Amino acid sequence: MANTLLGPLSGTDRVDGLLDDGAWIAALLEVELALSAVAAEQGAVTEHDADAVERAVAAVAGVDPHALAAESVEGGNPVIPLVKRLKAAAARIQPGAERAVHPGATSQDVMDTALMLLTRRAGHRVVADLTACADAAAALAATHRDTPCAARTLGQQALPTTFGLVAATWCTGLDRARTGLDRVLTALPVSYGGAAGTLAAVHPFGPAVADALAARLGLAPQGVPWHTERSRIGELAGALGVAAGACAKPAGDVVLLSATELGEVSESAPGDSSSMPHKRNPAAAVTARGAAKRAPGLVATLLAGAEQEFQRAAGAWHAEWETLVALLRVTAGAAARLRVSLEGLQVHPEAMARNLDLAAGAQGHGTGHAADLVDTVLAGRPA
Amino acid sequence: MANTLLGPLSGTDRVDGLLDDGAWIAALLEVELALSAVAAEQGAVTEHDADAVERAVAAVAGVDPHALAAESVEGGNPVIPLVKRLKAAAARIQPGAERAVHPGATSQDVMDTALMLLTRRAGHRVVADLTACADAAAALAATHRDTPCAARTLGQQALPTTFGLVAATWCTGLDRARTGLDRVLTALPVSYGGAAGTLAAVHPFGPAVADALAARLGLAPQGVPWHTERSRIGELAGALGVAAGACAKPAGDVVLLSATELGEVSESAPGDSSSMPHKRNPAAAVTARGAAKRAPGLVATLLAGAEQEFQRAAGAWHAEWETLVALLRVTAGAAARLRVSLEGLQVHPEAMARNLDLAAGAQGHGTGHAADLVDTVLAGRPA
Amino acid sequence: MANTLLGPLSGTDRVDGLLDDGAWIAALLEVELALSAVAAEQGAVTEHDADAVERAVAAVAGVDPHALAAESVEGGNPVIPLVKRLKAAAARIQPGAERAVHPGATSQDVMDTALMLLTRRAGHRVVADLTACADAAAALAATHRDTPCAARTLGQQALPTTFGLVAATWCTGLDRARTGLDRVLTALPVSYGGAAGTLAAVHPFGPAVADALAARLGLAPQGVPWHTERSRIGELAGALGVAAGACAKPAGDVVLLSATELGEVSESAPGDSSSMPHKRNPAAAVTARGAAKRAPGLVATLLAGAEQEFQRAAGAWHAEWETLVALLRVTAGAAARLRVSLEGLQVHPEAMARNLDLAAGAQGHGTGHAADLVDTVLAGRPA
Amino acid sequence: MANTLLGPLSGTDRVDGLLDDGAWIAALLEVELALSAVAAEQGAVTEHDADAVERAVAAVAGVDPHALAAESVEGGNPVIPLVKRLKAAAARIQPGAERAVHPGATSQDVMDTALMLLTRRAGHRVVADLTACADAAAALAATHRDTPCAARTLGQQALPTTFGLVAATWCTGLDRARTGLDRVLTALPVSYGGAAGTLAAVHPFGPAVADALAARLGLAPQGVPWHTERSRIGELAGALGVAAGACAKPAGDVVLLSATELGEVSESAPGDSSSMPHKRNPAAAVTARGAAKRAPGLVATLLAGAEQEFQRAAGAWHAEWETLVALLRVTAGAAARLRVSLEGLQVHPEAMARNLDLAAGAQGHGTGHAADLVDTVLAGRPA
Repeated sequence: MANTLLGPLSGTDRVDGLLDDGAWIAALLEVELALSAVAAEQGAVTEHDADAVERAVAAVAGVDPHALAAESVEGGNPVIPLVKRLKAAAARIQPGAERAVHPGATSQDVMDTALMLLTRRAGHRVVADLTACADAAAALAATHRDTPCAARTLGQQALPTTFGLVAATWCTGLDRARTGLDRVLTALPVSYGGAAGTLAAVHPFGPAVADALAARLGLAPQGVPWHTERSRIGELAGALGVAAGACAKPAGDVVLLSATELGEVSESAPGDSSSMPHKRNPAAAVTARGAAKRAPGLVATLLAGAEQEFQRAAGAWHAEWETLVALLRVTAGAAARLRVSLEGLQVHPEAMARNLDLAAGAQGHGTGHAADLVDTVLAGRPA
Repeated sequence: MANTLLGPLSGTDRVDGLLDDGAWIAALLEVELALSAVAAEQGAVTEHDADAVERAVAAVAGVDPHALAAESVEGGNPVIPLVKRLKAAAARIQPGAERAVHPGATSQDVMDTALMLLTRRAGHRVVADLTACADAAAALAATHRDTPCAARTLGQQALPTTFGLVAATWCTGLDRARTGLDRVLTALPVSYGGAAGTLAAVHPFGPAVADALAARLGLAPQGVPWHTERSRIGELAGALGVAAGACAKPAGDVVLLSATELGEVSESAPGDSSSMPHKRNPAAAVTARGAAKRAPGLVATLLAGAEQEFQRAAGAWHAEWETLVALLRVTAGAAARLRVSLEGLQVHPEAMARNLDLAAGAQGHGTGHAADLVDTVLAGRPA
Repeated sequence: MANTLLGPLSGTDRVDGLLDDGAWIAALLEVELALSAVAAEQGAVTEHDADAVERAVAAVAGVDPHALAAESVEGGNPVIPLVKRLKAAAARIQPGAERAVHPGATSQDVMDTALMLLTRRAGHRVVADLTACADAAAALAATHRDTPCAARTLGQQALPTTFGLVAATWCTGLDRARTGLDRVLTALPVSYGGAAGTLAAVHPFGPAVADALAARLGLAPQGVPWHTERSRIGELAGALGVAAGACAKPAGDVVLLSATELGEVSESAPGDSSSMPHKRNPAAAVTARGAAKRAPGLVATLLAGAEQEFQRAAGAWHAEWETLVALLRVTAGAAARLRVSLEGLQVHPEAMARNLDLAAGAQGHGTGHAADLVDTVLAGRPA
Repeated sequence: MANTLLGPLSGTDRVDGLLDDGAWIAALLEVELALSAVAAEQGAVTEHDADAVERAVAAVAGVDPHALAAESVEGGNPVIPLVKRLKAAAARIQPGAERAVHPGATSQDVMDTALMLLTRRAGHRVVADLTACADAAAALAATHRDTPCAARTLGQQALPTTFGLVAATWCTGLDRARTGLDRVLTALPVSYGGAAGTLAAVHPFGPAVADALAARLGLAPQGVPWHTERSRIGELAGALGVAAGACAKPAGDVVLLSATELGEVSESAPGDSSSMPHKRNPAAAVTARGAAKRAPGLVATLLAGAEQEFQRAAGAWHAEWETLVALLRVTAGAAARLRVSLEGLQVHPEAMARNLDLAAGAQGHGTGHAADLVDTVLAGRPA
């Protein structure tokens, strides 16, 4: 929605190509293709049928999203009509091959697995941007290890610190957030439970098919079906929320330190103003902050959705899809825009010195210890 | 994002055409056009220049959203490049006419006013669907005024009621929600404050231009500029949240009453299941509920954004745009899908009677009073 | 929880006495007393029995909250054991008088009505503090109608405005919030539906008892029972969320304007720091902001709770009680602490002038129009 | 607030004794005591002075929370007046010993460290209850490994499963949640940064004091000061949110399966109803669900608070205290009440069989695979 126009400035376009209609359809088909293939490997369907399914997937790949969407309304998810199309295509290619389409699966298996694929891909891009942000903060910390500036508490100058320690603190949050997100992404599982979550339809091949499917798609094994056990979605939501927060902190500081009266930092490509040429808006930090502020409410929605009744939730599951996509987008936007801000950040030590003279500088504390803490941060960064 | 594929089944496509890139650009240009026109009426610019702006708006209307989006990144909003294009087009049409573009305005004026236009239009569609839902509930209430069924508390049968009162209660919530939303929509104001929120640039025409702009666009007067006074956004968020909740309640009840073991209602076009032909999923209610569950987190984001610093917020404002659009979409989806559910709802009095025999029916209370309450609801419905 | 220690500094203690155990128990008994009395007036029970209930209420008033709480666990709400105690006391006073205890009511009627009483009382105190905040802002606006200061957008100085307009904008938000909250408080209804929400048990007295109960308690009539139609709770939540946001805005501005480098305002009793005697922390604004930040998540919880199944929700209702109390407390805290901040706010025009010289002052715009807008605000304030 | 009356039924009283005023004051003093002691060990203060502080702590331990609260208002946190009292007491005991009070620390160090202590203790109780819930679910799974029941999707009967697999799925979510929460609790760090987060005041002892303090209090080392780097608070919030969700899922299922028409499970001590003796409300599950529903909004508040400006946040930090306490309470309540529900859950295989006959049983699938999945869950449980 409206992301063509508003996406780039909020950075959410960073992952749009990984989460749009085309990506969804491709991921759904990727799951169906892999499922037929591993079912054949495990002996649940024939290789011959599975080969036809491979061609059917190719035939269906160009399906019009609008048509598929229209067909999705009745059943409440797009897998039902997609499977119908796949079965028809497979049967056309080779009568009977429709047996190898969607073997032992339910719609939710394919939706959930596809969503995990999309999440992993978009999530890795977020991790990459978080890493770049952390690297940029680390570089600032190293360069300004000893640059004195005022520490401010409750908005008031307190005592001297160094800008290196300010940036190093940003770095620790960003490193912690990317490590946490990466751990969650690595654990994203395949979903394969069948209509009742019992793997009954492909007995006795179920668990082996599930594990082979995970391996083929590069996802984690599921253990047991998790159709209504959503703790991993909650963990993912939490990690994305932490990541957005880790971006919001430096973005907010950049905005504040860029204030006309402070002038301690400025962005390398500040936004202009048609009517006010003297303004140098920290537009990247502003929009990073704007994106990050959208995360906590989305996290709450995903966590509230954990109460999924019986063996398939009547609404809470459906609420996850676009919410998780939105959460990935805003977190990606926060990281992407912050990266622009930090990688080009210009630091003004003379302004820092001038401001220090107002109050904190008179407190007579040195900043050697702040500089030592910078070293601690830089030496302890995760790989 | 992904709304082509997932929008129709969640009903959010109901307002997509009113909130997409094209609608945004059209609304932004509508505001600029109206602003030039009323500024001319009030004497702040010349009619001659304003006529050129009208042609410039037409010339710019076909702007590529991707191009405009790319140009928006630097300044952090799409109005800045749009105004540049408008000024260039106006100057080409008539040298000097660029003076009549964007007179006395700041980007936020145009963004906020356009967002109010989009909101009003999408909001009215939500009101229409809420009204249809309430009407459907009222019809069910009238038809089943005396149909006995079990009242259930904490999931347990309690005493008899009538299905008419169940539906009448849905009706009261839906009526209340639509009335509240309509009141808020009627109060959506124009925004016109200029760069500093002081109306300085068009002195002494500012307040008159603001009021004329409101009148021309059919929006409420602003009183004074509200760039960082967002209580009306909060009220709007609250009203949409209440509306989503008013849809969630009957949607949840339809899901529960449709359970195999209860079987008291069924949707007229229940979703099927490729593997389980005996299933009759209440897909419209399920997806209405799914859409409604996405609202509260978005409301929280908008309310948290009320803390907008100084005279233009550095992030909290930017967070509103897509969040409000998303909130309109999910509320619209909840109402649209619930409408499908309720307008076609099939009621099964024999199942209600059978269930009553299990427990509540033995409690010996009549249901006359429930029926009387139905009359109270139906007689007291708002216009 | 922990509010003795942390409440006063966050201002939440402002309403603690209206919402604590004693207030709950008193309100529950107030409802039971009123219910017996109006039931007698309407002929549903005898005056003689009702008189005994009045004495029973007095006898039970001193019940130990711990004991009552322990007895509440089994049934899931405190009304069940309270009614048992009341019935026993009434029967002791006059055999048979227990018939006049809790006539035609269900636990939820009493809980909901008591919660509305508590909300109205605490809410009125919030309205009073919001009004005081708005008055303080209006006084600042009047005094500083013409005091030039920098308007700041995206953290950067933009153009001149007056501090009067800054304060007047705070005033408009606060006035709007208190008006909205007051409207919602006035509409808080009585609850009276009986076990199944049908008013069956006191047929044909039900509606008359409900209306008389509302009149006696000073609450709004209910129309029909609303056990699972919670739009009024949602409206209340929204209004409280808007109120918290209207406090957060000026609180945030006070924090920013108090910054060492800006120095444009200071609180009259700023917080000190044991180790840093030069600091003058705007502690009232800081804690107002801290309280306000807690509101949006609580609003989301209440809105999400609108999906209340059947005729009594199995959890969503129970989640409302302490959430609404918490929301009242944090909104009260935000208003109370902001009031302290604004009523004592010291304004430093010389600092404003000095800062203007840095950038915005050179923009050559006058501030006459800003001053005119102050007049518009002050002339248009609601009663 | 009101927790004496409403706490026990929502289970939040499970941790009240660990989080109340007394616990806060004790924890604050525990931190001060430990800080003086380790500062002496490291040579930053004298052992002689530190001994006097130990006695001062004992002298101050009985401070009236109301008095301390009143003194906290001016500075915005309770550590400032507590340290004043401690210093005065130490000086009385031994002139000059006040040098050993609060050495090198700032208020936030003591508040944050105390909050981590409280969190760890309350969190461990939550983990214990989650473990008990998981154990109860595992026992149900083992007992009913082969008990057929209907799997239900979108509220409709789908195919047969076993109740063992239903319970085993509860178990996996609960196990995952407790493992995740335990990991976060183990990582809760000490906080020690001093006024500016630079450890300047105790140079060169700072890092050694910080690590010794962590060791003494059983907390994790901090690495570097984290006054405004709140990712660990976010991780904690996420883990608690996941835990609440893991409780909500089985609680919701128990409510649904207890419905009069299903009757597949019942609680061992169901709530009664004064007016409806036939009712058997699943009150423990109902209140567990009610508590769990309160978590997501609180998580959102904590995540939104990650944007903490400069070196001490002006509000976002203050918003954490009671929010985190509330989140611990509701998560504890959900786990405690669910434990009661599951440990006493009565399962009715005959009702399951009867319901299966309605629809799912006719689908002709066996349940052997469901039973196998139970074994997988039970064999793979974490320690």
